[in-house]
Amino acid sequence: MRRALELAARGGRDVRPNPQVGCVIVGPSGEVLGAGWHQHFGGPHAEVVALQDLEGVDLSAATLFVNLEPCSYHGKTPPCADLLVARGIGSVVVGTLDPNPRVAGRGVEHLRSNGIQVTTGVLEDDARILNAGFFRRMRAGRPYVRLKMAQSLDGRAAPAKGSSRWITCEASRRRVHQMRADADAILTGTGTVLADDPSLTVRHVRGESPLRLVLDRRGVIPPTARVLTDGHATEIIRGPDTGTEIDLAAALAAIRPEVLYLMVEAGPRLSSAMIQAGLVDELWVFTAPVVLGSGRASFEDPARETLEDALRGMTVHYEQVGVDMLTRITLQTP
Amino acid sequence: MRRALELAARGGRDVRPNPQVGCVIVGPSGEVLGAGWHQHFGGPHAEVVALQDLEGVDLSAATLFVNLEPCSYHGKTPPCADLLVARGIGSVVVGTLDPNPRVAGRGVEHLRSNGIQVTTGVLEDDARILNAGFFRRMRAGRPYVRLKMAQSLDGRAAPAKGSSRWITCEASRRRVHQMRADADAILTGTGTVLADDPSLTVRHVRGESPLRLVLDRRGVIPPTARVLTDGHATEIIRGPDTGTEIDLAAALAAIRPEVLYLMVEAGPRLSSAMIQAGLVDELWVFTAPVVLGSGRASFEDPARETLEDALRGMTVHYEQVGVDMLTRITLQTP
Repeated sequence: MRRALELAARGGRDVRPNPQVGCVIVGPSGEVLGAGWHQHFGGPHAEVVALQDLEGVDLSAATLFVNLEPCSYHGKTPPCADLLVARGIGSVVVGTLDPNPRVAGRGVEHLRSNGIQVTTGVLEDDARILNAGFFRRMRAGRPYVRLKMAQSLDGRAAPAKGSSRWITCEASRRRVHQMRADADAILTGTGTVLADDPSLTVRHVRGESPLRLVLDRRGVIPPTARVLTDGHATEIIRGPDTGTEIDLAAALAAIRPEVLYLMVEAGPRLSSAMIQAGLVDELWVFTAPVVLGSGRASFEDPARETLEDALRGMTVHYEQVGVDMLTRITLQTP
Repeated sequence: MRRALELAARGGRDVRPNPQVGCVIVGPSGEVLGAGWHQHFGGPHAEVVALQDLEGVDLSAATLFVNLEPCSYHGKTPPCADLLVARGIGSVVVGTLDPNPRVAGRGVEHLRSNGIQVTTGVLEDDARILNAGFFRRMRAGRPYVRLKMAQSLDGRAAPAKGSSRWITCEASRRRVHQMRADADAILTGTGTVLADDPSLTVRHVRGESPLRLVLDRRGVIPPTARVLTDGHATEIIRGPDTGTEIDLAAALAAIRPEVLYLMVEAGPRLSSAMIQAGLVDELWVFTAPVVLGSGRASFEDPARETLEDALRGMTVHYEQVGVDMLTRITLQTP
């Protein structure tokens, strides 16, 4: 399964909005008979690729490992569950069931009802994390959200006066560009656009610039803003309006379905509102080893009054980036 | 010299308030003839120990490595510089000059005027850092100060309501006890004593509890406070008074001379005042991977208004402690 996950990861961005899937077929003595992965959207599924050179081979004693439940419906390609039955695979090991309501266990059911022995839930967490965007989209109807914050050691996103560019070091800024390149869209607010006029494009690393989404309920972004004039795609989100602010959950649900991964790159106000609304899956906090002593707090939530109210993650991962420390906190699993 | 520094470090706390000194004597072909270190206060100096088994050996082609300039005055033991001359050492390599005004180059001068070839400044930074407390005491008349802060990822030392104990994890608390054990004294303020009634003793690790110093200008610490009733030593510092607050530089200068290393374990107000007064040599910031969103900022300095005013260290060292991140910033070298 670990190998299937590794192969799956090779699909990368090219398969979006499909999930990344890898497949390994192992013979009765543990020998690898075939392997493959879903390489690009619209291309053959991992199972098809793994089976392609096994025409005529008896697979009744073979086991097929795949990180995601084989599909059970006709999409751009015929259902893989049918193919496995037709090829007489002996047993199938599945990382996680497919959250797509058109599959959702039906693939496994189809295999079992045709006499194939099926095991599910093997390295399930890894299988979900690999396709976090796909899972979040399928299960919650919104993209998987990574929120980036840059701050001083004492938790200030900006000094009392003057620009907050750049609190963090050059290596961190490159890492932020990599985050952008890994995202399908970037969400920001009017405050950030008005204060910094950022371009939010991918520059210091390889990769495509993602779609930019600007929450601008009152339409205050000037037409001269970089995000509107530099030729890259930007969408302004004006609602839905709750009366005093934008309904963030509804705004995220309205983001086009091919956006699986959304990066939030905004100021403390919007960032904190996203967290309070439970819409952030991962926090990426870049902390520079400097003390400001005054200025804007990076996170604001007056409702968290006691230590028991503190926001705690499920997993924490540290990574030194240049002289800064990147703290990645997973708030909810996909 | 690296070996001399390693040996010197073995002296540890036992030599205080003397510096830690190690010595290696190397023959003309690079063979080690003798080695030693200053083991405890009042005991023989490193040079004496290194030479003790070399009675009658011709040392005219030998080189003596020592991390601190050999002493030139009669203290508890006769001057080492005299001994090296008497034993006919060919050359001497010194890590750093002795900042003690009674030596301050006179040891090296004495060697040179007696025909010994002397090199100074070899691994000088390491030599100074090893004896940071001794250097700070000799050069600035105050202890070397390590300030500890515990905070949330968003830089809050305490939540808006309720206790701040414990923001950080158990491993961090053990590390704090190790810091205490490594210090000669701990400084705190009335705010911390009144809010938390801490004992500030060494409990979860081996080591002696240091002297506790409480800044209490107005005498508000209740006689029932743990620091006054638990049987360990505490001194209350009431001045000197600047009118509205204690003159921190003068208070530190008045701390008894055997205190080489002072740990500051206090709230944001006193901690920030110590930094503003330029009295902190190292910041030790324990950051827990939780977001509070409200509460007391860990550092407060309204005078730092722009990014250019930010407090930046000379060196930064990261260390994961349990689930927390310890950021050690050296603000000034000894």
